[in-house]
Amino acid sequence: MTEALKEPQQDRSRATRQRLLEAAVESLAEVGYAGTTVSVVAARAGVSRGAAQHHFPTRADLFAAAVEYMTEVRLAEIRAQAAALPSGPGRTEAIVGMLADVYTGPLFRAALHLWVAASTEEALRKQIVRLESHVGRQAHRALLEVLEVSERTPGVRETVQGVLDMARGLGLADLLTDDSARRRGIVRQWSHILDQALPRSGAA
Amino acid sequence: MTEALKEPQQDRSRATRQRLLEAAVESLAEVGYAGTTVSVVAARAGVSRGAAQHHFPTRADLFAAAVEYMTEVRLAEIRAQAAALPSGPGRTEAIVGMLADVYTGPLFRAALHLWVAASTEEALRKQIVRLESHVGRQAHRALLEVLEVSERTPGVRETVQGVLDMARGLGLADLLTDDSARRRGIVRQWSHILDQALPRSGAA
Repeated sequence: MTEALKEPQQDRSRATRQRLLEAAVESLAEVGYAGTTVSVVAARAGVSRGAAQHHFPTRADLFAAAVEYMTEVRLAEIRAQAAALPSGPGRTEAIVGMLADVYTGPLFRAALHLWVAASTEEALRKQIVRLESHVGRQAHRALLEVLEVSERTPGVRETVQGVLDMARGLGLADLLTDDSARRRGIVRQWSHILDQALPRSGAA
Repeated sequence: MTEALKEPQQDRSRATRQRLLEAAVESLAEVGYAGTTVSVVAARAGVSRGAAQHHFPTRADLFAAAVEYMTEVRLAEIRAQAAALPSGPGRTEAIVGMLADVYTGPLFRAALHLWVAASTEEALRKQIVRLESHVGRQAHRALLEVLEVSERTPGVRETVQGVLDMARGLGLADLLTDDSARRRGIVRQWSHILDQALPRSGAA
């Protein structure tokens, strides 16, 4: 096969994979773990079941890849949006607000269904534990970066980790009802607290 | 029926109800929502299926009552433990640590399974939403009380709500792996931050 023929095929394969990953997250967020089979995801993505299984032999493979991919997309978006924010007053609140938006969106909802399913399903658990530690590290690093603080300063690491845990809690609180009004107040107040608590290195 | 005969029967009925509630929380925490039927809970509690259904006609009734009852038990425990704590340094960290313990225990795990199931099951959702708002208010009030702060001070409400969200996030982070070492660091650091951020009314 010549290069000219091979490349479009690789592009198509990559596009199919991406559609499957997006459909998996959407389906998990909307109908939960039990209702999200490889067939359901393939149908939602407009891909044949065979093609889906070529990319992802098992459900756990598909789910882990989906959450990982979507996390990378969201973190890249946060970094891009944060880079456009001015320094100074309001920056922290804008960042914590963006974080809260991510944790109340479909990606976190999908991850929540996976986590809870994994707590009673050993094969899934192993895969999700590996994924969770990778995703957690990435989110932590992105947050340090946009907040312009260094982990080498004592206390910063735990402060920032606590903010990520708070964002997870906000996501949980938004699962069954619209919690946005209460959330706005918490985001504002915790941003003030962070501005006092975080030793800023100045403009990064 | 005379009073002398009626009372022991009421006691027995109350004891049966309590065993069912405890067994429901245990089962939800250990095997999840799908595996926790009224029959499973009745067997675990050593009660007949008929007796269980006399107390709780539906699964949703049983689960909502179970989480409510166990929350009241835990909050009473926290209040009792907190009352025995000395004022001054270390008090906040002890309180936040106790809170984190509750949110990483079987009660939170059971609630998590219910919340996630309720997000895709409308009949359960209605019941859990009512429960969640009641439980959330109770936990918030208990935390204000033991931290000896007043909601009338601007910012206190949102600060304390954020701590409850952080505790929820810590509970989620402990679902699949033992997160206790990381959690200890966050509890310590955020207790320092809270000691700075919360305007204390002095000894309560």
